[in-house]
Amino acid sequence: MEDNAKPSGTDVPTLADVAVAAGVSTATVSRCLNSPDRVTQKTLKIVMDAVDRLGYSPNYSARALAAGRTNTIGAIIPTMENAIFARGIQAFQEELQQNGCTLLVASSSYRQDLEEEQIKTLTVRGADALLLIGYQRDPKVYEFLAKRKIPAVLTWVSDPDSDHLSVGFNNRQAMKSLAELVLENGHKVIGCITAETSANDRARDRVSGIRDAMKEAGLDPSELLVEETQYSIENGDVAFRKLMAARPRPTAVMCGNDVLAVGALRAASALKLEIPGDVSITGFDDIELASVAPVPLTTVHVPHRRMGQFAAQALMAALNGNAPDNIELPTSICFRETLGKAPAPNKR
Amino acid sequence: MEDNAKPSGTDVPTLADVAVAAGVSTATVSRCLNSPDRVTQKTLKIVMDAVDRLGYSPNYSARALAAGRTNTIGAIIPTMENAIFARGIQAFQEELQQNGCTLLVASSSYRQDLEEEQIKTLTVRGADALLLIGYQRDPKVYEFLAKRKIPAVLTWVSDPDSDHLSVGFNNRQAMKSLAELVLENGHKVIGCITAETSANDRARDRVSGIRDAMKEAGLDPSELLVEETQYSIENGDVAFRKLMAARPRPTAVMCGNDVLAVGALRAASALKLEIPGDVSITGFDDIELASVAPVPLTTVHVPHRRMGQFAAQALMAALNGNAPDNIELPTSICFRETLGKAPAPNKR
Repeated sequence: MEDNAKPSGTDVPTLADVAVAAGVSTATVSRCLNSPDRVTQKTLKIVMDAVDRLGYSPNYSARALAAGRTNTIGAIIPTMENAIFARGIQAFQEELQQNGCTLLVASSSYRQDLEEEQIKTLTVRGADALLLIGYQRDPKVYEFLAKRKIPAVLTWVSDPDSDHLSVGFNNRQAMKSLAELVLENGHKVIGCITAETSANDRARDRVSGIRDAMKEAGLDPSELLVEETQYSIENGDVAFRKLMAARPRPTAVMCGNDVLAVGALRAASALKLEIPGDVSITGFDDIELASVAPVPLTTVHVPHRRMGQFAAQALMAALNGNAPDNIELPTSICFRETLGKAPAPNKR
Repeated sequence: MEDNAKPSGTDVPTLADVAVAAGVSTATVSRCLNSPDRVTQKTLKIVMDAVDRLGYSPNYSARALAAGRTNTIGAIIPTMENAIFARGIQAFQEELQQNGCTLLVASSSYRQDLEEEQIKTLTVRGADALLLIGYQRDPKVYEFLAKRKIPAVLTWVSDPDSDHLSVGFNNRQAMKSLAELVLENGHKVIGCITAETSANDRARDRVSGIRDAMKEAGLDPSELLVEETQYSIENGDVAFRKLMAARPRPTAVMCGNDVLAVGALRAASALKLEIPGDVSITGFDDIELASVAPVPLTTVHVPHRRMGQFAAQALMAALNGNAPDNIELPTSICFRETLGKAPAPNKR
């Protein structure tokens, strides 16, 4: 098959080169690499010295196919900026490491087409299993993974009705809980700054959570003032200014994550608005940024580290032939200083 | 060779399965995948439909070896937390994408042993080229990459005397420029919070830059009060408190990066120290965090985006058989509000 043709015009050392250098058969070299306990210490040393000297790397792709494992795990996250996914992925990696696995991460810029390409690249490059963010993708992607028998764990989401393995949390319920607190503080005109909801199920669920709470409190959920943008401090700043120009002006702005909320805080400070005296602002995630914000941020705490750790354990279980259970982790509200009572009407 | 044995007990579709499903020879399937212009549109459609239906992926590893390219590029960064490397890597990825390449990133937790493992994994998994951070690693790693003909670009550093391709900046000179400003403001007792310098050439160079400036200003560089820790807001906070307990107490604390500096700011606020009235604090990097810190941070601005972009261009050039030049990018001082005059002696 021409797919296995030896590369021409390169001098990447082959197994045969190692055999010649070590003065042994290729079968012996192969045995040293695959079953070192079946050769003598002396032979092993001679062969491994030759391996080192020539810079030979066994073709793990083919070998792993035979063994069924490469010990490489892939993760595709929407962005490496803003540290939104950083802590969870770090914990995921630490747990994998303890299981002798190496993590390779790709970042899709929140683009489904790129994510699909990256899933193929990671699979072709031999990833044993994948961590992905959210549920929303072309069903063909799930079929592809199923056909190739690549276990995937979906994180940052939890839906008991889904067929797909997940380790995450309920975005809608988490945001609803925070929205209930906002409403209890007397806020009736509420703004929301969110990531684009069409391609991001986490963002969509969080907005729905706010609407759920409004509905239960007897407010019209369609009156929620929504600004869609991309996650960044700068974009949070711009969106907050737009919301402050609306009439009636929102007395509370709930942000889809902490990064947007910190941008909103920055804009509020520039607009000489007191937080929370004039406007309340909330976040989501509880990344480190939330606690060092100019006004420490009231936000939803997500157990990122445990999510990453449990996701790794679920994939390890799946790779060992078990059927791991979905895990839904509880979130909590982290009370700091940006949520307060709605200002009296004459103060608005 | 047993390395190429067909996996047993799995039903990953093979080229032969596609041939059977499409009713053509394996040679035709192979031609469709490798030289689609050599088959008719009709045949191509029949075969590619079978490929999709079965979820077949050609063995790109072997194919790419023959072609010499996989269009996969690897990057190994010390950490994904704290967004230190995020912006540069994002720009690196965007530039690669425009060249049809996919980026896979590994994170080494600042550990050389893990980085070596990850270099091997990425190489074995078919990375065409690598981006690495800093110069400092076992010479064997460079030998390994040279033998395997994997171009590597070293970033976040610049040393005209090095043989290795680099796209980065001069950490020592950048920090020296900032230290000169600190000294011009009358500070004589200076503290420094840095990452561990033994395994981190960027951190070491930044500390050396402060000492260079002290020496030129007639101060004894050995009097620099150095706290080594790992990059995190929490660790910056702890280290700052240690420095504030020293006698004489530093009137300026220069931090190895913005993350540590934001931790120092948090501690200063807890200690009721005015910034910069009582103590000046400086950072390094100019990540987004610096501008939203409780007191906006005076820091060294690093052109992260351009560095990532130029690093990708350098690798593309190397892969196309050219010998790209090293690039040293200028840094600049970003003046905000945390650097001021040293307090009068009676105020200390």
